[in-house]
Amino acid sequence: MKINGIAYRSVWRDQAGSAVRIFDQTRLPWAVEELRLSRWEDCAEAIRSMRVRGAPLIGAVAAYGVALAMEADAGTLDPVLEALNATRPTAINLRWALDRQRSRLHNLPPAQRAAAAWAEADAIADDDAETCRRIGENGLPLLAEIAARKGRVQVLTHCNAGWLATVDWGTALAPIYMAHDTGLDVHVWVDETRPRNQGAALTAFELGAHGVKHTVVADNAGGHLMQHGEVDIVLVGTDRVTRQGDVANKIGTYLKALAAHDNGVPFWVALPHSTLDMRVRDGVAEIPIEERGAAEVTEMTGRTADGRIETVRVVADGSGAANPAFDVTPARLVTGLVTERGRCAANEAALLAMYPEKA
Amino acid sequence: MKINGIAYRSVWRDQAGSAVRIFDQTRLPWAVEELRLSRWEDCAEAIRSMRVRGAPLIGAVAAYGVALAMEADAGTLDPVLEALNATRPTAINLRWALDRQRSRLHNLPPAQRAAAAWAEADAIADDDAETCRRIGENGLPLLAEIAARKGRVQVLTHCNAGWLATVDWGTALAPIYMAHDTGLDVHVWVDETRPRNQGAALTAFELGAHGVKHTVVADNAGGHLMQHGEVDIVLVGTDRVTRQGDVANKIGTYLKALAAHDNGVPFWVALPHSTLDMRVRDGVAEIPIEERGAAEVTEMTGRTADGRIETVRVVADGSGAANPAFDVTPARLVTGLVTERGRCAANEAALLAMYPEKA
Repeated sequence: MKINGIAYRSVWRDQAGSAVRIFDQTRLPWAVEELRLSRWEDCAEAIRSMRVRGAPLIGAVAAYGVALAMEADAGTLDPVLEALNATRPTAINLRWALDRQRSRLHNLPPAQRAAAAWAEADAIADDDAETCRRIGENGLPLLAEIAARKGRVQVLTHCNAGWLATVDWGTALAPIYMAHDTGLDVHVWVDETRPRNQGAALTAFELGAHGVKHTVVADNAGGHLMQHGEVDIVLVGTDRVTRQGDVANKIGTYLKALAAHDNGVPFWVALPHSTLDMRVRDGVAEIPIEERGAAEVTEMTGRTADGRIETVRVVADGSGAANPAFDVTPARLVTGLVTERGRCAANEAALLAMYPEKA
Repeated sequence: MKINGIAYRSVWRDQAGSAVRIFDQTRLPWAVEELRLSRWEDCAEAIRSMRVRGAPLIGAVAAYGVALAMEADAGTLDPVLEALNATRPTAINLRWALDRQRSRLHNLPPAQRAAAAWAEADAIADDDAETCRRIGENGLPLLAEIAARKGRVQVLTHCNAGWLATVDWGTALAPIYMAHDTGLDVHVWVDETRPRNQGAALTAFELGAHGVKHTVVADNAGGHLMQHGEVDIVLVGTDRVTRQGDVANKIGTYLKALAAHDNGVPFWVALPHSTLDMRVRDGVAEIPIEERGAAEVTEMTGRTADGRIETVRVVADGSGAANPAFDVTPARLVTGLVTERGRCAANEAALLAMYPEKA
């Protein structure tokens, strides 16, 4: 998508030789800084330090890391795969992308590995962008129908499920970008998304840079907005969807689903096939929820009026904090799912009809 | 309640002559600073600058302001009442306390006004403390019943409805303090309460200073905690309760009420009689919701590691914010109300049975 009118992806091949470029997302939204990654170790560091984040983007950067390693020394495949896999051990797309490189490369003679690895990494990135573009196409009719009826469409989203988390387009934001690009009058309520503020920092940045109208709100505000008819549809991404259609996503998503249900607002979830986890049925009971550090709640980082980046404590001294990072929205609160294959209800029969190979 | 083992109120008579003392709440939780108010203009400034906040506390400080004015010049009653009333024009308790002083004083000869005004201000403060103490007594059985059954009780609260917002005890926190003081094993989940962070700053400070176990969480976390049985009861204060039992309170309260309802967790609201507004029936339709400045969402203030108080921007540049300050929880989601007279259901018949004089 665009920044100041120029189209970008979140990772791309450097024009000037063997390297890739990313935006240092730890500097966003305060500075838009490109980083050039010319060694596989640079890719590992970028993933480990969360200069790139979002499961699909992590996978693509790791795949490019393999290509850089093969160009430097084609004999290092196994240790490099292992080292890259260890950068963020829980990200499922990371392992998936590295497995794809392993399958492609391990039977090739070393002299052919670099070219094949570059091609495979490009394919992984292109596949992700195409998957997200299709999610956008399949979600667009939801927004177009509302806009046709009401003249405009107001979407509420939570966290960041945009192009900065994927290679391009994003998941939940893909239909929004497509609606904007096709001229629909779309306005997005962006949940701040405490404690890590991915909405206030990244989603607001993305939408603003592409020119999409949006307004940031405290996570507390969504229910009130829905009670007063200010939200036409809720559209969120997800970290895992279970066989019965339960949706794990950033903490607080469940509260918005409850409010949507209580106010008759459609609640849709956008995902690629890779986010489906058919081994798990009951999301609330079965999905372990990561408990992250208390400092994410007790401290906030931002920019002072004179431009310094400062971290401040916002919780009374001596008070501790808990920080569950995700919650699970039961399928009964989910109006439907948008995937690269189309739209379906959030239940096992509908998911198996759309993905029969996952039975 | 207590700070470091010493019992305080939020406003009290100075031992050393004609003055009152408060805590400068704009400095909390980073510094516990007593301010001595020796002129009525000091009281006006403290209210206007939000050094004291919370409707009951504002009323008491204004009443003491009248006493200080009468001691300085008993001929200034009317202009002082007018000036104090203008400090926070929308706070209903402010006008109520000043009307009470006016009724008491305006027929007295000037020489008798100072003593009468001090006595009336003391009575207003004592009445508020007693009202809140009774709310505590009437709410305590709710917590005691759970503790008897489960060995301990976990409460979730939103915003600050504690002694810092009243003269002593608080409303929603009064039953919690009473449970703690009577030896029940009580733990409080404190919602951060974005955007003004009254939970993270004031409620956490209050509970910590009195020795009540508590944990701060992002406003997003409550639904997840309830799904997993970590909340036994939700207890909140309110800014207005309507004839049919709808509850206006800090933005985000409605989302917690939805989650409580979805998980079978009791949702109780604590209030004094003065918060009942029998002229309004349908809270969602009829109560105007204050829209506050966007800077409360886009900026946060806290303390740096080296002790400076800094304000940082936390929203991407160029992105605007909306800031509705309250929402309305429909009566159907409210398990019951706790008042100084007892407990009742959130509906007109129950409210009129408890407050027949308000018919």
